[in-house]
Amino acid sequence: MRRALELAELGSGRVNPNPLVGAVVVRQGSIVAEAYHRAYGGAHAEALALRRVGSAAQGAELYVNLEPCVAFPGKQTPPCTEQIIASGIARVIIATRDPTPQVSGRGVERLRAAGIEVHEGILQQEAERLNEIHRKYATTGHPFVLLKLALSADGKIATSKGDSRWISSELSRQEVHRLRNRYAAVLVGLGTVLQDDPRLTVRLSQGRDPLRIVLDSQGRIPLDAKILHLNSSAKTIIATTDALPTGKAARLSSLAAEVWRLPAAEPGRVNLRSLLQKLAEQRIDSLLVEGGSTVAGSFFAAELVDKVLFFIAPLIVGGRQAPGAVGGAGLPQIAAAVRLKGFSVGPSGPDFALQGYPEYDQEKGEKEEVKRK
Amino acid sequence: MRRALELAELGSGRVNPNPLVGAVVVRQGSIVAEAYHRAYGGAHAEALALRRVGSAAQGAELYVNLEPCVAFPGKQTPPCTEQIIASGIARVIIATRDPTPQVSGRGVERLRAAGIEVHEGILQQEAERLNEIHRKYATTGHPFVLLKLALSADGKIATSKGDSRWISSELSRQEVHRLRNRYAAVLVGLGTVLQDDPRLTVRLSQGRDPLRIVLDSQGRIPLDAKILHLNSSAKTIIATTDALPTGKAARLSSLAAEVWRLPAAEPGRVNLRSLLQKLAEQRIDSLLVEGGSTVAGSFFAAELVDKVLFFIAPLIVGGRQAPGAVGGAGLPQIAAAVRLKGFSVGPSGPDFALQGYPEYDQEKGEKEEVKRK
Repeated sequence: MRRALELAELGSGRVNPNPLVGAVVVRQGSIVAEAYHRAYGGAHAEALALRRVGSAAQGAELYVNLEPCVAFPGKQTPPCTEQIIASGIARVIIATRDPTPQVSGRGVERLRAAGIEVHEGILQQEAERLNEIHRKYATTGHPFVLLKLALSADGKIATSKGDSRWISSELSRQEVHRLRNRYAAVLVGLGTVLQDDPRLTVRLSQGRDPLRIVLDSQGRIPLDAKILHLNSSAKTIIATTDALPTGKAARLSSLAAEVWRLPAAEPGRVNLRSLLQKLAEQRIDSLLVEGGSTVAGSFFAAELVDKVLFFIAPLIVGGRQAPGAVGGAGLPQIAAAVRLKGFSVGPSGPDFALQGYPEYDQEKGEKEEVKRK
Repeated sequence: MRRALELAELGSGRVNPNPLVGAVVVRQGSIVAEAYHRAYGGAHAEALALRRVGSAAQGAELYVNLEPCVAFPGKQTPPCTEQIIASGIARVIIATRDPTPQVSGRGVERLRAAGIEVHEGILQQEAERLNEIHRKYATTGHPFVLLKLALSADGKIATSKGDSRWISSELSRQEVHRLRNRYAAVLVGLGTVLQDDPRLTVRLSQGRDPLRIVLDSQGRIPLDAKILHLNSSAKTIIATTDALPTGKAARLSSLAAEVWRLPAAEPGRVNLRSLLQKLAEQRIDSLLVEGGSTVAGSFFAAELVDKVLFFIAPLIVGGRQAPGAVGGAGLPQIAAAVRLKGFSVGPSGPDFALQGYPEYDQEKGEKEEVKRK
């Protein structure tokens, strides 16, 4: 199963909004075939592995990190369950069930009904972590949002003068480029464009460029910003409001940037829920938010962050005016602060990488839902 | 040696400004006696252990985490080296040399000259860490300064409304009380007194109370502050400047607080170097700075922090106005930021404890020294 997870990861950045899936066929304790889902629209991992092993599948075991797919109305590809049954595989070992509500558990049922032994839950936690993006997208239809920031040990993302290069180590920055390859879209606020003039492309690691989004409600992005002049297979989107002047919109479009006019939440701010809705419509399953502080504050205020990843560098920056990780109004009381589940830390070169999953107050959310009705 | 280090730690809070020392006598692979330095002015660990073992010391091994002391002019107690030689001990195993420049290495020399086999450097790193306070004090005569703060994952020490109870877990707070027992003095700024009204005593763990210092340059501390009305064996000191009105000084003294009028650094700020000098004169070997943000900024600006310990809690607080760990003006460029050596992290209940040793730019320090001349 560990090998299946490794294989699955090789599809990183190519399969969105599909899950990462790896499959391994084992016969008498030895691997006889392996495969992974390589690209959106391409063959599934199980189908590929079975094709490779041919008649040797008879009586063998199939390890796959995700429950194999079943037939459902409108499905284009032949379902993996039927191919597994036809192959003569005797046992199927699964890490996690398909999170999609309509099909979850149906693959397991179908295989068992055909007399195949099915084992579930092997390396389940690792497999869930690997496909956390797909889990969110499959169950809600909305992209999984990761907030990534580089912080000094005293919690600053830049100095009081706005300098932020480089807080984190080269190794941590390479990891960010790997994330850009994994995530379907990446977003920064206008402040980050003005301060750092980033490209948001994948350079420090192998991979494809993500869709780039600049949150710029007033349309104040300078026309010479690097992000508007890239040689990249992916688009740059300016997420703005009606405050963007028509003339500027035309000039941005001529620079191959796409302009999205979205509803304003409060005066002068793009409604982030509308932005995520629009991304969902474009089948964007994942969004990497790279800052800055104000953007992070807005995403938290809207309770839209699914995961945080903070690279903590061995530096003290200081400064009452130097921006911290999460700006905006913030929460008034510690008791009301957002708790992080699965809080963990690991080394990242000379830095430490902290991560966790924000747990919003469900009750409060529901109450607001009621109020809105 | 590990046992010697454990024993040494038992003297925590009782031996300042002496080092923590443990000693173990081993004969034919078995421990026959052990002891530790229990209190300032009391017997040394080696002397105690040898007294316990009596004539059985003949041919035995002595494990001690610090180089035994030698005779020097003005020394009151009989030197440990002479007692070891007289006891018949055959081998002495030492973790670290005495850091005091005048005697470092002389204990080892004396033992070797008397024909005793000496091994050095066993668990040296752990032993240095254990006596980091003594190392600083013995080599500079100034107290070792630890900055301890509790931070949210996004680097805040309080909300925008000033609420900070409780960011860190109970386990982390117990650890802070253990530090209060270990450190000779503990310091907070007036802001922390106004906001949190702390007592700064040892309650969540065993131990003695440290000397308490409130940095209050204008003498604005409220007369009903808890810290002025404690039943504690240790004193409360108001570190202030000439800006404190005489009447208020008299009232503070009547509340059993001691008033220290110190030179002002910039207008309205106690000169921290003068404060540390005064603490040094009182043989205070260690100072635990517990905040807040402004105080942390002042200590960093004066390059006086020897170690940082940040408890990072699984919380997101947010807020552009919410105070971060280190306030003040801060550093303008990341390249000029203070680097932390020995950056490490470990679990502390649900929190993580980050620690490191600030490395100030020596060259810059020397240049300023030259300028001042």
